[in-house]
Formats: sequence, structure tokens, C-alpha cells
Amino acid sequence: MKKLINDARAVVDEALGGLAAAHADILSVSFDPRYVARRGAPIVGKVALVSGGGSGHEPLHAGFVGLGMLAAAVPGAIFTSPTPDLVLAATRAVDGGAGVLYLVKNYTGDVLNFETAADLAVGAGIRVESVLINDDVAVEDSSFTAGRRGIAGAVLVEKIAGAAAERGDFLESVASIARRVNASMRSMGVGLRAGVLPYSGESTFTLAEDEIEFGVGMHGEPGRARIPLEPADAIVDRLVAAIADDLPFAPGDRVLLLVNGLGGTPQSELYIVFRRAAQALAERGLVLTRSLVGSFATSLEMQGASLTLLRLDDELVELWDAPVHTAALRWGC
Amino acid sequence: MKKLINDARAVVDEALGGLAAAHADILSVSFDPRYVARRGAPIVGKVALVSGGGSGHEPLHAGFVGLGMLAAAVPGAIFTSPTPDLVLAATRAVDGGAGVLYLVKNYTGDVLNFETAADLAVGAGIRVESVLINDDVAVEDSSFTAGRRGIAGAVLVEKIAGAAAERGDFLESVASIARRVNASMRSMGVGLRAGVLPYSGESTFTLAEDEIEFGVGMHGEPGRARIPLEPADAIVDRLVAAIADDLPFAPGDRVLLLVNGLGGTPQSELYIVFRRAAQALAERGLVLTRSLVGSFATSLEMQGASLTLLRLDDELVELWDAPVHTAALRWGC
Repeated sequence: MKKLINDARAVVDEALGGLAAAHADILSVSFDPRYVARRGAPIVGKVALVSGGGSGHEPLHAGFVGLGMLAAAVPGAIFTSPTPDLVLAATRAVDGGAGVLYLVKNYTGDVLNFETAADLAVGAGIRVESVLINDDVAVEDSSFTAGRRGIAGAVLVEKIAGAAAERGDFLESVASIARRVNASMRSMGVGLRAGVLPYSGESTFTLAEDEIEFGVGMHGEPGRARIPLEPADAIVDRLVAAIADDLPFAPGDRVLLLVNGLGGTPQSELYIVFRRAAQALAERGLVLTRSLVGSFATSLEMQGASLTLLRLDDELVELWDAPVHTAALRWGC
Repeated sequence: MKKLINDARAVVDEALGGLAAAHADILSVSFDPRYVARRGAPIVGKVALVSGGGSGHEPLHAGFVGLGMLAAAVPGAIFTSPTPDLVLAATRAVDGGAGVLYLVKNYTGDVLNFETAADLAVGAGIRVESVLINDDVAVEDSSFTAGRRGIAGAVLVEKIAGAAAERGDFLESVASIARRVNASMRSMGVGLRAGVLPYSGESTFTLAEDEIEFGVGMHGEPGRARIPLEPADAIVDRLVAAIADDLPFAPGDRVLLLVNGLGGTPQSELYIVFRRAAQALAERGLVLTRSLVGSFATSLEMQGASLTLLRLDDELVELWDAPVHTAALRWGC
């Protein structure tokens, strides 16, 4: 294992230290209790979005703290959910009186810990709503999940619901938009080579030299099948079919396509994937309306990519286009 | 070798196809002759910046085509300079009558081909200036270079000179600013694991399990030394010393720090590097004024990172902050 790290136990804190040093204009980091808050939070009268989960998926979620997106992120240890007291501390730090919306990827630990935090926050007089993100069509139930897993689609929920909060929507309305985004999107990924856990030096899974994990989870969980490595276009066609047939998306639907790298895949390969995915969408009569390409929801340095497809309407397009200023996503300001 | 590609010979064209599909609002791609031009080019009365070089360094340079940065990029084959006819075609496509500025990283092939293209363009009545980028302090002379190599600092030259062109500066002024940026910055990188060439399946270099290439080039060229893997902070201290002592930077200097990933390194490690680099700059009395963290000038999926330090003045800060809208860098619009 070769990584640019110091102490394996300090990886999360040191990366957050760098994030704070590089983006002091956007966010601040509290190390004990550990959370990342938007600069200037709490913002009085606006709904505050809080997300979090195990670390190792950077820039998810701390890279999306800032104007037009998250009010706070709560990073746990690598692949380990943050405890309720940390979520509660972040909630107290960013609540501006209009309530707090938890965006929770569907992993058992996250679901339990955010539920407990919500109970504690409500007991402290803070209004809380929660939205579950479960966009991954690969499998029902998994190593850490009952039901479907939440993966890169979280980025789209955070961006769009964040824009709704920024324009001043009430808590129920922001929650409703977040649920609409989650219900209108589907994702699935493929892994070519696993990431390596910093504290153990172990790969999260092992594949033969000619094998890929089709439907891999963002912690290296098993997908639908291990299949032989194929040309990118064939892999993309499989992913698009699995995703598009699931919602299902229908001819004429306007869609946003996210091609997400899993951490160790260079951008050129992501664009090769995007090229074929865009063709496959056109063949299905879907109208590619917005695009996002990059490594946003990763799994350490895993090689591979995921696709997320979101059905758009006029309001979702407007919220997508609204200004955002975070470490990992920025436009309009 | 496992990559998300189809035909190894089609990697560059297919990645450009994806770039065009994802960013039709920013750029268009000509496949024969092959170049990437800003949408709406030529822009009458404004200086047009053209850069290029071998592919495999994405998003450099095509990801930096757009408002406030490059008018065109000319991608060669993987690690192979584009021929003069391609540079000339891009030049003709984007010249808006105010002249064209070539930004050329210092590799022998690029220097020769851009010189020849400049001669041809001038013969065709187009005003051309050229600026050489040679920010890498690692070595004098190298596999493909006489003198110092040009690496990630190219991104800073393109951003700042692009802003000068966008505000309407004359050709000589834009060239002068580009030369000032190049003269005021220093870079150096470290490689942990090489990228793999798609057409041969060969790694660009091979290291022992406990070894790193200190001062690695962006094609995997040798650096100053192969040394044992050290904690990130020790590696960063070596890089900062090599860079800061070279210009030299002096206490009180305002600086921009770019931490650049080489393709296969996850963002969390880049922030761990940034954290220590920011501390080391403070210890030297340098004033961290602007920051950029991400994988901008890569070497296929090489694991590793480079640091670039640029001495700022008021004008450079203003040009850095000016709006930019490209596939890989965007703010202010």
C-alpha cells in the first residue's frame, strides 16, 4: 500500500485540516466534536441541510458544504457512520430556526444514527425532517443495507434541495423536493480495482485480472455479478439498461446524467463512459439536458465509475442551475 | 491493465467525444483536424490563447477551453505532441484578429511543433506570440526536454493570461503577463505508482513497493531520486523546500498554492498534502492567499501529486479571481 498519508488513524482529521486551510472562505471545521459547517452558519430563517456518513468518499459530503448546498457535513471514520452526538452537534451549529433537513444515504448505521440524532434534536426544540437516499439499483439488501444503497445520487439531492433551502423554501417543501429527486433518479456503478483501507492496508475486495464487479457498492460491497472485463461501451450499455429500465425512464424524459469516478479513475476514462452513455440515452429517446462528470462520490482510490440518471422537470432544472459555492462544486458565484 | 476504454487507439477521440457531449455549452470538438475550440470562437478583437500537447494529462488542456481561459486546445496522441498542421488549424479557427498566444510546455516536440505552427500562422497573416512554460524545478534536461519541464503550473498561466485576454489586453500584454506568471512560479511532483499506457499496457515506470519517484515528470520521467516511501508530511516538506528555495520565495510573499493530483490519487490525500504544505508555507513567512486543490494536470492514472507555488501581486490576484467557465475550472459565472 502506498498512500500520501501520515498516521492511518489521522487520515480523516488531516484531510479535513487541509480542506479548512484551502477553503476558509467557504467552511470551517470543528474537530471535537467533528463536523464541517458552512461559513457564517447558522443562517437565520433558512433551512439547514445536514448530511454525513463514513469517510473515504471524498468530496462527499464535506466538499459540498457551502452556499446553495449543505449547511453541515458530519464525517465518520473511514466507512463508519458518525455517531448521533456528532450529528446533533452539527445540527445545533447550523440550525437557523427554520429547521434542519437530514439527507441520509441508506446504510443501516447511518439510518440509525441520524434517527437517534433527530430524536435528540427534536427533544432540544429543533425541527428536523429526514430524507433517505437509495438510488443504487444494483441489489436489494447488502452488507450494510436493508433495501437499496445510496450512492452518487446523493450529490444531486444535496445540490437541488440545497438550492431550494437557499431560496427560502420551508422545511417541508425542501424535504419534499429532496424526496422527489431521490424518487426520480437511479444509479449503478462498476468496480475495476478496489480501494485500499488505510488502517489495515487491505483491499476492500479482490478481483481477478480480467474481472470487474458489476454493480459494486461504494464500500466495495458486492454488486450483481462478477463478469469479465469488457470494452467500456459494453459496460456502459449494461449500466444504462439497468438504470433506465428501473424507474423506468420514458422517451421524451429530460434527464441529468452524472458520470462519477470512484477515486482512482482518470477523467479521460470518465468522458469515454459519458460519450457512450449519452449515445445510449439518445437511442432510448431520453433528452440529455444537464451533465456532470467528475469524481464526486468515491471509494478511496477504487478504479471504476458509476452512472446516475435523474428525470428533470422545470423546477429541478432551475434549482440545479442555481448558484453554488462549495469546495467541490461551484458555479454562478 | 484494466481501464474503462474501448479501442486503445481511440482513447483520445472518444474522450473528446464525451467532452463535447457533456459541455456543448462551452466548447466544440473538431476531430479532423483534431482540436477543441471555445464555443463562439473566433471572438473578434480579443487575443486567443492556444495550448496543447500530448494527451493523457486530462483535464489539461481541453478541460480549460472556455470563457476566461483557452480559446483552443490541441490534443496530440497519448504523450505525443500534436503536429504543426493541427496547431495551425486551431489557430485559424480561433484567431479573432487580435492575435494568438501559444502557451507551450517545455518539451522538445511541443516546442518544435508550436514554433513551426507559429511560422506558418505568421506566413498566413496571423499575429502569434509564444510563451514557454517550465515550472518544474526537479531536473535540468530530461527524457523529452532541454532545460526544465513544464507541468501543472500551466494551469495557472492559462487561467491568468486567459483572464487578461478576456478583459481585452493586447497580445503583447497578455504574453507579458503569461511570462510573468511563469517566472513567478515553481513546481515539483512525486510519483507513488505509474500510469499505464493504453496501447501497450506498460507502466510508464516501475517502483519497488516501498519506493517513490521524487520529482517525477508528468510522463513518468525520472526525477531527482528514488527514495523510500515516507509519511506525507515529510514528502511535502521536501517538495516545499525544493520549490520555495528555488525562486526563491521570500517572507511576506503572497502566494497561490496548487496541490495537483496525478490522476489516481483520491482527493482526501491531496488535502492531507495541502494541510502540511500550508503549514510549511506559514513557517517560511509566506502568505497563503489563493488555493486550488484537484487533479488538473495528470499522467494517466498515476498515483502521486505535485505542488505549484506562485508569487502573487494585486494584478495576478485580480486576474485569478476573474470569471472562468470551462469544463474543469469554473467560477464567477
